[in-house]
Amino acid sequence: MNYKLIRYILGLVLLLEAVLMAPALIVALIYWEREGFGLLSAMGFCVAAGLLLTLKGPKSKTMHAREGFVTVSLCWIFMSAFGALPFVIAGAIPNYIDAVFEIVSGFTTTGSTILTDVETLPRCLQFWRSFTHWIGGMGVLVFVMSILPLAGGGNMYMMKAESTGPSVGKLVPKVKGTAGLLYRMYVALSLIMLGLLLLGGMSLFDSLITVFGTAGTGGFGIRNDSMASYNTYLQVVTTIFMIMFGINFSFYYLLWKRKWKSAFGMTEVRVYLLIILASIVLISINIYGMFDGVLQTIQQAAFQVGTIITTTGFATTDFNLWPSFSKTILVILMCIGSCAGSTGGGIKVQRILILVKSIRNELDVITHPHHVRKLKIDGHALERSTVRLVNVFLIAYAAVFALSLLVISIDNYDFTTNFTAVAATLNNIGPGLEVVGPTGNFAGFSYLSKLVLIFDMLAGRLELFPMLILFSRSTWRK
Amino acid sequence: MNYKLIRYILGLVLLLEAVLMAPALIVALIYWEREGFGLLSAMGFCVAAGLLLTLKGPKSKTMHAREGFVTVSLCWIFMSAFGALPFVIAGAIPNYIDAVFEIVSGFTTTGSTILTDVETLPRCLQFWRSFTHWIGGMGVLVFVMSILPLAGGGNMYMMKAESTGPSVGKLVPKVKGTAGLLYRMYVALSLIMLGLLLLGGMSLFDSLITVFGTAGTGGFGIRNDSMASYNTYLQVVTTIFMIMFGINFSFYYLLWKRKWKSAFGMTEVRVYLLIILASIVLISINIYGMFDGVLQTIQQAAFQVGTIITTTGFATTDFNLWPSFSKTILVILMCIGSCAGSTGGGIKVQRILILVKSIRNELDVITHPHHVRKLKIDGHALERSTVRLVNVFLIAYAAVFALSLLVISIDNYDFTTNFTAVAATLNNIGPGLEVVGPTGNFAGFSYLSKLVLIFDMLAGRLELFPMLILFSRSTWRK
Repeated sequence: MNYKLIRYILGLVLLLEAVLMAPALIVALIYWEREGFGLLSAMGFCVAAGLLLTLKGPKSKTMHAREGFVTVSLCWIFMSAFGALPFVIAGAIPNYIDAVFEIVSGFTTTGSTILTDVETLPRCLQFWRSFTHWIGGMGVLVFVMSILPLAGGGNMYMMKAESTGPSVGKLVPKVKGTAGLLYRMYVALSLIMLGLLLLGGMSLFDSLITVFGTAGTGGFGIRNDSMASYNTYLQVVTTIFMIMFGINFSFYYLLWKRKWKSAFGMTEVRVYLLIILASIVLISINIYGMFDGVLQTIQQAAFQVGTIITTTGFATTDFNLWPSFSKTILVILMCIGSCAGSTGGGIKVQRILILVKSIRNELDVITHPHHVRKLKIDGHALERSTVRLVNVFLIAYAAVFALSLLVISIDNYDFTTNFTAVAATLNNIGPGLEVVGPTGNFAGFSYLSKLVLIFDMLAGRLELFPMLILFSRSTWRK
Repeated sequence: MNYKLIRYILGLVLLLEAVLMAPALIVALIYWEREGFGLLSAMGFCVAAGLLLTLKGPKSKTMHAREGFVTVSLCWIFMSAFGALPFVIAGAIPNYIDAVFEIVSGFTTTGSTILTDVETLPRCLQFWRSFTHWIGGMGVLVFVMSILPLAGGGNMYMMKAESTGPSVGKLVPKVKGTAGLLYRMYVALSLIMLGLLLLGGMSLFDSLITVFGTAGTGGFGIRNDSMASYNTYLQVVTTIFMIMFGINFSFYYLLWKRKWKSAFGMTEVRVYLLIILASIVLISINIYGMFDGVLQTIQQAAFQVGTIITTTGFATTDFNLWPSFSKTILVILMCIGSCAGSTGGGIKVQRILILVKSIRNELDVITHPHHVRKLKIDGHALERSTVRLVNVFLIAYAAVFALSLLVISIDNYDFTTNFTAVAATLNNIGPGLEVVGPTGNFAGFSYLSKLVLIFDMLAGRLELFPMLILFSRSTWRK
């Protein structure tokens, strides 16, 4: 294990975090909020720790798979540990575990909150809280790698660990080039959305918050009713952009390169849009009569479907009051999640495709034992190791889910609350049902449960393996 | 597809079913119940259909994998379709779908019921209903195979499809010999239990019913309070035998052969007993204060843990009223299930072991890419195909679970009811929580939901693949 390199990268990430806190500090200056001192002190801590860790450069810049995964996990834990400081120092969230829960929910783009009244939070901290969504959506390590190129395949391992989906889709041969392209598309889409929201009459501050929550598929809002009080135009724009940020970014790259056929031929994107369409239709029929007219019904169904499948977690209505069928669709969408290579969470449509194909293939193998065939997606045969990794992903997912459910059930909430609390955090969504429904929050859970859910959010964002590797004995064996 | 052979075997199974209805007819004669005519007519239908189907023998007795799985699925469906007739003809369960639900629940050893008052059912039908547990526990096709030996590996495929666990553990080289041994152990254990219950002062009829429900890990009772009103001795005997019937029968074979070391060295059995012990301890602590004294608390916890992990489904208390932590343990035990090669349902401890080892192995592969190793259980390396089959089993399990949950949620029961209704049927347990809890039943579900749950019970008993193969397009391709 190249401990010196890991230490050095951790230091770089903390220095970067200090820089990332700067915009929130500007907000504090604009609104002249004294909670800015909390931010300033936190920045001080980040810089001090960052300088201490980067004082001595690493001898070797070689990083193997094991270090790659461990580094990514540790970076996310460190970012969260320091990112929680502004809330604690400013006194806005006095308890450290609560503050960590909130900021992990931010970085992992979950959007679950322990705040009972988000409107009383000072603007600068509202900004920092939402800005972490935007940072976490695309990830920070690939950005760090562009400063510090690694040997031994390190860049690739870290990108694998931080990006979403079963395999890394490199747009151009180099990791650095791919990362650059992804960031550019991310910024461009965010700016377009910002413009459209401003056009709709939303204030700049609210627009920024909404863009951060949408682009990162995070879901933190600054109003207690989430997005319910915004007008229909703003809700529709948000719906469309939520769904867009849940699409594999390769799709936009292909569009940009004018490869229309390849873009619209992507099976994952087609299935993703099909699932959304089918869910909207089924829910609209099921909830018909709860809203005024067909159009509003469809609009409300679309918003909720979009916010859940992309794992954003905004809300415009309390879907906890919807009939069971609609709620069950939403719970299933929670687990499916968005496309690979997007900023969203969940199992990912790509993995669902591979899983379904695995079942079909196995039935074929059982009934026609001598008939050999390989799984294909978009005409390309999948590596056996990729298929196995996806299969094991589901096993690990089920195991983490069951164990989390067991531990948080000690708090004695009802089964639906517990089940959806785990689903909402492990899939980085935000709200669940019942106590943790769109009008509820996670404040009532014990600290043990909060720690479990913090683990789930991180495990969900990093797609299980990096966090499991961090806590696995074999990783630390010589 | 060797349709003639399939037809012939279906005929044999129906003839066998007529014979299996005979004991219930004797009960009708003893208690002089006119519902015996229902049984007699059903026997007539079975014989008529059976003779018609076996009129012409098959030209070839060659059976390949595909036919093997399809035959087993169809046999179970036919047995259920005819097994429901006594209830309908006698007027005890007027609706045919309800009657099929009840008898599928019997054959698959589930124990879920649509009856709101089981005590009003005539004795002969109570007997038939419970007797199907005993039949279904061990399976009927292996028995049929001893009359009709097949070529092309047919016997093996059918045993694979009907017995429990990821791989068939043959005790002796021949399928027929293995089947004979299994039936002998099954009868012997059942007789010992019968003796112990009679010693405890239970009536012969009640004892038989209890033995059928325990040996098949079924759970149908003949009292509305299940086993709550029986004395502690009877409950303890039942607890011990439930747990015993959930153990891999190879264990008893090894004991009989005096291979103590191999027997007690079986990882699956050790893990199974360890899970039971841990669950009893955790639940006892959690429910402490709900019963009188430590001993009664442990006895009640043990009964409920035993009944759920073995997927029997008897009840001595309404565990729906227990705290969330205990209920969550029970829900997780529902999915784990008993040992492979037992009469119980669920995913099976053997599969759980393989799944957990798959996760560990994958973490090892990610962190040490050049380090190759094979999964081992009890010192034997597992075939790659077995591991893949187990992985895909979990995927198919999750898919069937999610789809079932979605369809039955149309009935608009709460999420916990729906979730545990699927868990209880797919794992062949019987009771779930809330509406389908130990004091509830499945009567309120729509016919669509009942059909889905009937499918789940059959899919659970045959461990998914045979039923999925029956409904897969590729099976019927030329």
